[in-house]
Amino acid sequence: MTGESFDRLFINARIAAMTADVKPYGALQSSALAVKSGKIVWIGDPDDSPAKEATGPATEVIDLEGRWMTPGLIDCHTHLVFAGNRAEEFEMGLKGASYAEIAKAGGGILSTVRKTRAASEQELIRESQSRLQAMMDAGVTTVEIKSGYGLDLETEIKMLEVAKHLGEMNPVRVQKSFLGAHALPPEFAGDADGYMSKVVHEMLPTIHALGLIDAVDAFCDTIGFTAEQVRELFKATQKLKLPIKLHAEQLSNQHGAEMAAHFKALSADHLEYLDEDGIKAMAKYGTVAVLLPGAFYFLRETQKPPLDLLRKYNVPIALATDCNPGSSPVTSPQLIMNMAAIFFRMTPEEALAGFTRNAAKALGLDAEIGTLETGKRADLAIWNIDHPAELTHMIGANPIHMRHFG
Amino acid sequence: MTGESFDRLFINARIAAMTADVKPYGALQSSALAVKSGKIVWIGDPDDSPAKEATGPATEVIDLEGRWMTPGLIDCHTHLVFAGNRAEEFEMGLKGASYAEIAKAGGGILSTVRKTRAASEQELIRESQSRLQAMMDAGVTTVEIKSGYGLDLETEIKMLEVAKHLGEMNPVRVQKSFLGAHALPPEFAGDADGYMSKVVHEMLPTIHALGLIDAVDAFCDTIGFTAEQVRELFKATQKLKLPIKLHAEQLSNQHGAEMAAHFKALSADHLEYLDEDGIKAMAKYGTVAVLLPGAFYFLRETQKPPLDLLRKYNVPIALATDCNPGSSPVTSPQLIMNMAAIFFRMTPEEALAGFTRNAAKALGLDAEIGTLETGKRADLAIWNIDHPAELTHMIGANPIHMRHFG
Repeated sequence: MTGESFDRLFINARIAAMTADVKPYGALQSSALAVKSGKIVWIGDPDDSPAKEATGPATEVIDLEGRWMTPGLIDCHTHLVFAGNRAEEFEMGLKGASYAEIAKAGGGILSTVRKTRAASEQELIRESQSRLQAMMDAGVTTVEIKSGYGLDLETEIKMLEVAKHLGEMNPVRVQKSFLGAHALPPEFAGDADGYMSKVVHEMLPTIHALGLIDAVDAFCDTIGFTAEQVRELFKATQKLKLPIKLHAEQLSNQHGAEMAAHFKALSADHLEYLDEDGIKAMAKYGTVAVLLPGAFYFLRETQKPPLDLLRKYNVPIALATDCNPGSSPVTSPQLIMNMAAIFFRMTPEEALAGFTRNAAKALGLDAEIGTLETGKRADLAIWNIDHPAELTHMIGANPIHMRHFG
Repeated sequence: MTGESFDRLFINARIAAMTADVKPYGALQSSALAVKSGKIVWIGDPDDSPAKEATGPATEVIDLEGRWMTPGLIDCHTHLVFAGNRAEEFEMGLKGASYAEIAKAGGGILSTVRKTRAASEQELIRESQSRLQAMMDAGVTTVEIKSGYGLDLETEIKMLEVAKHLGEMNPVRVQKSFLGAHALPPEFAGDADGYMSKVVHEMLPTIHALGLIDAVDAFCDTIGFTAEQVRELFKATQKLKLPIKLHAEQLSNQHGAEMAAHFKALSADHLEYLDEDGIKAMAKYGTVAVLLPGAFYFLRETQKPPLDLLRKYNVPIALATDCNPGSSPVTSPQLIMNMAAIFFRMTPEEALAGFTRNAAKALGLDAEIGTLETGKRADLAIWNIDHPAELTHMIGANPIHMRHFG
């Protein structure tokens, strides 16, 4: 509590603090929340003396008329910065074209690499801004954005600079993950070791020196890089004291999550083919499971991530849109929450924790955001709903009333 | 062409007329479209002499800067008017409650009946308006709305009056379907014949006399009414010369679509369990197949509607949100188009035809709406996209630029 007056006082809120206590949704009895310098400085009732003393003429009082307040949503796994889209190859596939035919017509991830390399920084900003706007309109206050459609030094830098600019241009917190090890660029066809060496020895240190990396990610699978190759990257990452994330066990079990956990990774993401040993390692080292039902849906995957085992070992479960032009052209957290319920049988409360408390952990930001507690950033989402379960139930409409970025 | 000047002239459009010709999406070479008194009166190029002659000082010229124009979307199957929501029973189910436990706690369709009966007309309008607004924001210019949560004379009338008022209050065309035969009300538990007799002999003629019925619908399945019971309703409907629609073959094959087709039904809807005989009858009598992927998804159905056979017999295929509080709490046509592609392998062009040309047929309005042709209503949707396939590909964001209601 500061002696000075509040900047902003929200009253008549129903507050779902999303703290991990016994109350569903961390719901509070208190109905008021005060903001000072972008932080939550007080939670209580309007009749309490702190509210009366610290509400001055300069305090903006906002009556929420009984609406629900939750932490601002955190989308902890996106590939939001890219050029072009892949709607036409999606259409080709639905008309019966084979994967080979689509690749021959220039489709697949390398088509996005080509367009992203060719795009100017301004073009990339413009295209990405519309996706970011859709997310902010849906209540997102923090978004992680990965590189990985450059696969060369220049374009990887360009992507991360675009991500940085988007964060500066908008009332949103952007976390930048370096995903140079996303796919094999055409220049290194057949030489994954050679490309990984470039990532480890040239791209990672150069881009880190520019201050553009908040975390390092990689794609470990049969069509990406082997766990051995990724291990080399993570060793170098560890020396730089950068946090680690990993696309793991999406298409097969490469034991990548277990390997990443031993590096104390913030998160392992996708995880449809994760096994119990991997889960035990994640639990032991505090690695968050980030589930991505959008890609599960678009790829018509049938193998589901091991929810029961993740719950059994108390591994925190986050959700994210995985926004990308190929396997998850999705910008709606609410839709992903719904898919997590329908496909994975996650409860509405687990789903909301997946976009708040646990998503903050997956970004290493849980001391600052993800729950509504004094001392945390005042990232808030206010909803026109009568019950928090509605956020996971209804899809298509956007029940947001307002969003506050702390 | 009228001798007077155009009310409105759209220029620099890429026009997807959605006519059933050889061009994908019925795409036109012409880039301009003129509106007079709510109708499309001319399509051509701005340099053509009609455009020059009929563009007067009173003509509003709207430069679409290369954006795509499609027919306004038509949502031909919704239960949009209802009170309350069922998010909490959705949550109970995900926490492991059985169907019986949820029913005991007051859940299921009868909970919506209870709330809809209790709601005032003003409350129903307010709750339904937010769903309708979401649809309009997504490009919908025509929506069908069913009764069926009253299951008594008074509330069925109230629902259809609310639907009518919503149409009068908003720039949208509302078609009202009487669905008294939606479920068995508690007052008639165990006496489906008795309730159907009330529907046929009291509700149908009374509500029709009030001018509130554009079509008559029923739910024919193991948990609804038998084909024999529905046949009695349709005989009475036929005598009143009202169009017929049917919820058919959603959970099992009751041969309802075939029966409805023999009544020259406008549409048979759901159709997961439809067989070839049913399809042949639909083809013969011009009955549209309305597919509802939202309910397929929410109910985790695995039996898919017979797309290949529907295509083989040239049965027009429409799509709809099925917006309802239980099995499809969805207000986004685009999301449904995407689900039709992912789950049923419909192409983006089929999906868009499902919300335009074929949806118009499913409402008996194909002479007025559903394609962009001179003489039709100027119901238009303008999109910030580079290719019409994007409407089916990207989900969560709303690429609408503007909507025009003729």
